[in-house]
Amino acid sequence: MAQKPSIPKGTRDFSPTEVAQRNYIFSTIKEIFEVYGFQPIETPSFENSSTLMGKYGDEGDRLIFKILNSGDYLKKVDDNLLSSKDSIKITSKISEKALRYDLTVPFARYVVQHQNEIEFPFKRYQMQPVWRADRPQKGRFREFYQCDADVVGSKGLLQEVEFVQLYDAVFSKLKLVGTTIKLNNRKILAGIAEIIDAKDKLIDFTVALDKLDKIGEVGVTKEMLSKGISEEAIQKVQPLFNFTGSNQDKLNQLDDLLAESEEGLQGVKDLRFVVDTVEALGLESASLELDVTLARGLNYYTGAIYEVSAPKGVAMGSIGGGGRYDDLTGIFGLKDVSGVGISFGLDRIYLVLEELNLFDVVELPKPKVLFINFGENEAAYCMQALVSLRKNNIKSELYPDAAKMKKQMNYANRREIPYVVIVGSNEIENENYTLKNMQTGDQQVCSLKELLEITL
Amino acid sequence: MAQKPSIPKGTRDFSPTEVAQRNYIFSTIKEIFEVYGFQPIETPSFENSSTLMGKYGDEGDRLIFKILNSGDYLKKVDDNLLSSKDSIKITSKISEKALRYDLTVPFARYVVQHQNEIEFPFKRYQMQPVWRADRPQKGRFREFYQCDADVVGSKGLLQEVEFVQLYDAVFSKLKLVGTTIKLNNRKILAGIAEIIDAKDKLIDFTVALDKLDKIGEVGVTKEMLSKGISEEAIQKVQPLFNFTGSNQDKLNQLDDLLAESEEGLQGVKDLRFVVDTVEALGLESASLELDVTLARGLNYYTGAIYEVSAPKGVAMGSIGGGGRYDDLTGIFGLKDVSGVGISFGLDRIYLVLEELNLFDVVELPKPKVLFINFGENEAAYCMQALVSLRKNNIKSELYPDAAKMKKQMNYANRREIPYVVIVGSNEIENENYTLKNMQTGDQQVCSLKELLEITL
Repeated sequence: MAQKPSIPKGTRDFSPTEVAQRNYIFSTIKEIFEVYGFQPIETPSFENSSTLMGKYGDEGDRLIFKILNSGDYLKKVDDNLLSSKDSIKITSKISEKALRYDLTVPFARYVVQHQNEIEFPFKRYQMQPVWRADRPQKGRFREFYQCDADVVGSKGLLQEVEFVQLYDAVFSKLKLVGTTIKLNNRKILAGIAEIIDAKDKLIDFTVALDKLDKIGEVGVTKEMLSKGISEEAIQKVQPLFNFTGSNQDKLNQLDDLLAESEEGLQGVKDLRFVVDTVEALGLESASLELDVTLARGLNYYTGAIYEVSAPKGVAMGSIGGGGRYDDLTGIFGLKDVSGVGISFGLDRIYLVLEELNLFDVVELPKPKVLFINFGENEAAYCMQALVSLRKNNIKSELYPDAAKMKKQMNYANRREIPYVVIVGSNEIENENYTLKNMQTGDQQVCSLKELLEITL
Repeated sequence: MAQKPSIPKGTRDFSPTEVAQRNYIFSTIKEIFEVYGFQPIETPSFENSSTLMGKYGDEGDRLIFKILNSGDYLKKVDDNLLSSKDSIKITSKISEKALRYDLTVPFARYVVQHQNEIEFPFKRYQMQPVWRADRPQKGRFREFYQCDADVVGSKGLLQEVEFVQLYDAVFSKLKLVGTTIKLNNRKILAGIAEIIDAKDKLIDFTVALDKLDKIGEVGVTKEMLSKGISEEAIQKVQPLFNFTGSNQDKLNQLDDLLAESEEGLQGVKDLRFVVDTVEALGLESASLELDVTLARGLNYYTGAIYEVSAPKGVAMGSIGGGGRYDDLTGIFGLKDVSGVGISFGLDRIYLVLEELNLFDVVELPKPKVLFINFGENEAAYCMQALVSLRKNNIKSELYPDAAKMKKQMNYANRREIPYVVIVGSNEIENENYTLKNMQTGDQQVCSLKELLEITL
C-alpha cells in the first residue's frame, strides 16, 4: 500500500535552513533591484503554448514542459493523426499550456498586453521559478529560479553601465568577492563577421576562439579551418589570438582591427562609453572584463552582452548574464521597443556561496525561546507568558506535549534554541520563571518583565 | 505574424502595486508563523503523479494539472489503447508528473522522505502556489497561493489552541477586524452520526443543517428526509435546529445531546479545552465560534476542524481553514504521526483587504529620487551622486535618456516619485544639486551631503 516517497528528477525539496539561505540571496537581490529603481511584476507559471513555442529555437521547444489539456482531451483528436503516433504534431492538439521557460518572453508578453498601464521607460524586476526538461547535472535543475531586471523603452547606454554596477552591488552585498563581469557587444561580433566575411560562421568562430586557453593558437586555427573559415580570414583577425592587456588596450586594438567595419566601430564606441563610465565611477568587488568571445546562446541580443563568472577557483558555469535586445516585443505586436536586462542564476549563486562558506550571516528560522511543558497547569501558565513574548515579536514556542524533560531539552539542543524556560509549581506560586541560557548553561529566576527584556 | 498576447484562463499577471500588496500579506503571515516557532520548507512545483493521484478523490484527480512526458512520449503507448481514446487510461502512460494541488500532501511526502533529518514535533510553514483545473470565478483561480502551517508529531490540544491564536494574530496585524474563526471537531460529527444512526449520511446532514439560516427548519427537515435521514433521527437532534447562545451554552447543549456517544463526548471535552483556553488568553480582533455544521470537503480530518470567514458584509467564501489529521503520512509509509494545521488563502485575503481599503499601509516599490537627464555631461555628474544615494539604500534612478524635460517630469509625476534632482551646467560648476520636492513644489539648491540627508 505505502509508496516509497520521492520527487521528480531535477527537482528539489528545500529544508528550513536552505529556505533561509535562499531567501537571504533573494532579499539581497530584491533590495538592490529596488535601490536601482526597478519594480516587481509576476506572471503566471504557465502561459499559452503559442506564447512560448518557437521563441527559444527547436531545442527550446523540446525542453518546454507542456501541460495536458483537462477532461476528455483525446476526444477531438483526428483518428489518423493519433494512429500516426507523431508526438510533436499530437502535442499541439492535446496541450494548450506550457510551463514558463524563462522570464524574458513572459515579460515581453506582459509589456505588450499591459502597454497602456505602464510608464515607459519601464524598469521591472521578476524573481520566479522557470522549468526546463533538461538533463540534470551540477548547477542545472529542471526547476530553478531566475531573478531578472530589465528596462524597456530606452536605448540609453547609461542603462548598460547601471547593470554592471548592479551586478557589482549584489555580489558585494553577498560578500562574494572576485566575480568577473564579462562584457561584449553584438556590434563587435557583427564587425568581426564582416571582417572575416563569414556572417554565418560567427558562432563557430567565437566558440573556437573561446578555447584559446585550452587548445592554444594552433588548435583554434585548426578548428576554425575545419568549420570552413578561410586562412585569409583568420589572418585578418590575428590580433584576437593575442588579445590581452587592460580593457583600454583591448578597445584600442579593436579600433584598429575593426577599422573597415562601420558597425564594428560603433560597437567599440558603445563599449568604450560603458567601460569608461564604469571605471570612472568604480566597482566595489567585481572586475569588468571585455571579452570578444562572449556571444551567449540567445540570438536576440543586439547590443551589450553580459555574463558573470564566479570567483576563480570555484567550478561553476556563469552565475548571471544578459544583454540588449532591440525588438523583443515585436513578436507580440509592439514594434521598436528597445530593452536591456540581466539575470541572476539563484541556484548557482547558492552553490557558490555554499562552497565558499558565505552563509554564516544568515539568521536561521528557529525560535529564540522554548517553554518546557510539564503538564496542563504549567502549560497554561506558560501560554500566558507566550502571548506576551509573541506580541513583542520574540520567536517562541511551548513544547506541545508533556514529554520527558530530557526529550524536551534534546529538542532544544538539536534545534539550537538559545533560551529555555522551565516552569514548575514553585514558579507558578511565586509568579516567576526559570530561564536557562543554553549556551552558557546559566540559570536564573526572573519576572515576566525580565524574561521579555532578556530574550528580546 | 504578431500574436495578440493573452494568458490562460484563471491565471493572472501581477503589476508592481499588486506584487507589493501581495508581499505585504505574505510577509505578515511569514512573520507571525516564525514568531509562533514555525520553520519554512519548500517542495517542487511538480510531483510524481503517483504522489498526488488518488489523494483528493475522483474530483481532485480530475482537477490536477498533468505534465506531458518529454520526447517521443507516444512511442511506447499500446496501439489498441491509443485507438480506444480512453483519455484517463492513456494519461497514466504519457504523463508521469503533475502540478502541486495543495501543500498538505507534498508536506506529508516531505516528512516521510526526510524523517531522519527532522526534529519532531516538526512545526513547518510553506507558502507556495498550487494549481487546480477548476472553473474560475470570483476568488477562485487556477493558480493561487496557499500559506500553510502544520505541526506533526504531537497530539497536544495546545497546538489546536495556538492555531486559533495564530489566525487572530495574522488578521489583527493585517487590520482585518471582525473575522470569525469557526471551530468544530470531527468527533462531534461522529457523535451526531452515531446518534442519528446514519454514518454514511453525515455529510448530507451537515450540508442540510448549514442551510438553516436560508431555508428555515421546515426546509432543512425536508432536505434531510429527501436524503433518507429518518424522522426519528431528526427528532433526536432537534436541539441543533435551535443551536444558539455562547460557545459555553453550545458545549453544554452538546454534552446533553451526545450523552449516548462516547466519541461525541470526547469531542465536546476536546472542544471545551480549546474554547476555554482561548477565552482565558483572549483574542485581539477575531471571534471564536463553535459551529457543528463545519465539516469541510477534506475527509482526512480526525480532530479539530477550522474555517475562517471574512468580516460580515464582505461576500467571500472562507479565507482560511484546516484541522487535525491523525494519519496523513501513513499513505507514504510512516504510521501514527498525528498532525494539525491551518491554511491561509492568500488570494482571497487579498480581495478582502482590497474591498475594505486596507492596503494604504503598503509601501509601493517606486524610487524616492529621480535625476533628470539633460545630456551626457549632466548625466555623468548625476551618476556620481546616484552611486552615493544607492550606497545609502535610497531608492533612486536617473532617467535613462536625455528626453524633453516635460516628458521626464511627467514620468516622475505619474510614478509619484517624491523628489526630483535637476542638474544643469550651473550645478556642475558649483558642485551642487537642485532638489525639487514634488509634493510641495519647493525647490532648493543643496550639496551632496544635504541631498543624502533630505532624501534618506
